[in-house]
Amino acid sequence: MPATVDNDALHAALESSLQRRFAQRIEEAGAHDPDFAALWRTTAAGAAGGKLLRPRLLVETFHELAGDAASDRAVIDIATAVELLHCSFLLHDDVIDGDVLRRGRPNVIGALGRDVDGDARSISARAGHWGRSGALLMGDLLLADAVLGFARADLPHVARARLLIALERVISETVSGELADVAFSDGVRTADLPSILRMTAGKTAVYSFELPLRAAAILADRAPEVEEALATCGRSIGLAYQLQDDLLSVFGDPHAHGKDPLSDLREGKETAIIAYARMTSAWSSIAPRFGAADLSDADAVVIRRLLRQCGAETFVDNLVGEHLVAAVSLLDDAVHHGILPDGARRVLVALVARITGRRS
Amino acid sequence: MPATVDNDALHAALESSLQRRFAQRIEEAGAHDPDFAALWRTTAAGAAGGKLLRPRLLVETFHELAGDAASDRAVIDIATAVELLHCSFLLHDDVIDGDVLRRGRPNVIGALGRDVDGDARSISARAGHWGRSGALLMGDLLLADAVLGFARADLPHVARARLLIALERVISETVSGELADVAFSDGVRTADLPSILRMTAGKTAVYSFELPLRAAAILADRAPEVEEALATCGRSIGLAYQLQDDLLSVFGDPHAHGKDPLSDLREGKETAIIAYARMTSAWSSIAPRFGAADLSDADAVVIRRLLRQCGAETFVDNLVGEHLVAAVSLLDDAVHHGILPDGARRVLVALVARITGRRS
Repeated sequence: MPATVDNDALHAALESSLQRRFAQRIEEAGAHDPDFAALWRTTAAGAAGGKLLRPRLLVETFHELAGDAASDRAVIDIATAVELLHCSFLLHDDVIDGDVLRRGRPNVIGALGRDVDGDARSISARAGHWGRSGALLMGDLLLADAVLGFARADLPHVARARLLIALERVISETVSGELADVAFSDGVRTADLPSILRMTAGKTAVYSFELPLRAAAILADRAPEVEEALATCGRSIGLAYQLQDDLLSVFGDPHAHGKDPLSDLREGKETAIIAYARMTSAWSSIAPRFGAADLSDADAVVIRRLLRQCGAETFVDNLVGEHLVAAVSLLDDAVHHGILPDGARRVLVALVARITGRRS
Repeated sequence: MPATVDNDALHAALESSLQRRFAQRIEEAGAHDPDFAALWRTTAAGAAGGKLLRPRLLVETFHELAGDAASDRAVIDIATAVELLHCSFLLHDDVIDGDVLRRGRPNVIGALGRDVDGDARSISARAGHWGRSGALLMGDLLLADAVLGFARADLPHVARARLLIALERVISETVSGELADVAFSDGVRTADLPSILRMTAGKTAVYSFELPLRAAAILADRAPEVEEALATCGRSIGLAYQLQDDLLSVFGDPHAHGKDPLSDLREGKETAIIAYARMTSAWSSIAPRFGAADLSDADAVVIRRLLRQCGAETFVDNLVGEHLVAAVSLLDDAVHHGILPDGARRVLVALVARITGRRS
């Protein structure tokens, strides 16, 4: 196995593994229930065309750590399961947030609602209930498929046991972060900056970065200290990634990121941006329209300007930079002490560079 | 291992295994997030005190089939995972139906809503969102735990592989049935009697009866023909059980079954009772208030009387009897042909008797 990976070929291999999995589900469903098969097709379409950031990170890091210590097949299988887990979390996140768009197109909720009402953007209560229920249940299937993917991978017993422990903790931390996110948005818990940052790391960084990196170390049969070094680095990069995501959702170009540009402000999403702004004198001007269900484009323009003026955007932008610098410094140390090979450091530094310049 | 099982001891062993699992999750969560631990406690309380029908069926049938072919520990672990799967489906079912009561007490949604508003029965939009999101996410954790329970059971490779295949199919069929149920209720698909019966079997019978019976056969290392005979019998019993459940929800004593007695009629749930009534002249009198969000107790009294008069209750009651008779006849045949031991038949005939006299 080569020490470097052809990026296009890897992306194609992962996309094809993912779509093979969906094709199998569509075929099985179609054998006795064409409506169920149609739902699988909608779900597969929603999952297609993603960046495959998580499985690529896993496979690229694995190649740098392992050479031929595990079979390619098991690595692709686990990487595919990681992407299915991501798809499941996205669907349930959309159900909770009531979003109908993802990556600029109707998500599963929007697509199912559109099938009933003919329009994804203004759907009736009946179509909305059908869309949310469909997304919830298809998300359950993807979650079960992800865990089954880990359970069935053709691996030695010890490796599978380590992977299942990592997976269990990661699912638990992700749900705990997501719960905190909802609790802050619903005003059930009070959001201060430290707890917002904990929630931000928990709900995305852990499964998006820590899990693929832990899995790469385990699949490459590396010692726990390698797994822990990668996990710590993954958390820092992941937190930076999610903070960047929060910045893009509010200040970014919706044509580039494809999400509803008013969503976070309309639902009153408690991010580090908002937690900072709450401590400034600008908050009294932001608060009246923040979280308003009928937030207008004009309201959003005003709120964005206030968030910039009070320093919230700069504050979070600096946090992103600070965590990325910490991650790179940790990688340098790990290479210096012989814990990580330089190739693994290069994969992660390239990821850091991608986050820095991210627009979508 | 004795061929007969002490029922009270088995119930206690299963309840204790289930609560140990929850206690572990509560402890892990409490180590870094007391709010998350509180959610686990609410979830554990909602899962406690159930009839444990599914895991008991599994263990009792296993004992009759196996003697000492597998370790007790793995059997209890799989039985516990089956109950966790049930708890997960209940939580997600409540989210979809918007129910806040289960077994006569606030369910997870009601309990979380009450924590915010002080009352489980009339909760604000904010508390309702928090309750539904909490139930969705805790249901995700229980689903992952159930699959992880199957993945980790201390079993030979072949037995685990067979169990994972059964589990995958069962989750898929259950979700497909639940989706059909929602599609009928939301008017997205037209409900005729045959498709209602398919949905009714899919959403409950498969995971509640077919899965425990298949698992018992696999754990006892019995041949596929034994597994298939039990699975077919489980489907019949399970369909009867769910039809009985539909009857109880509409006509039963709410003090005995503990559910909201107006729920099915208010949400316009498409059951075999309703599919039959739609074919009668009574439907024109039932239709105007069926599925009305503001359905009153007086409306429900009228609808129940009409459903009785048109023969819907009797029709479904007869279907229940017919499927139970078919199950018993299948069991007799299987014993006659040496496929099943008589002890397994006795366990299932006792279950049939319990369903016949069921009030809750």
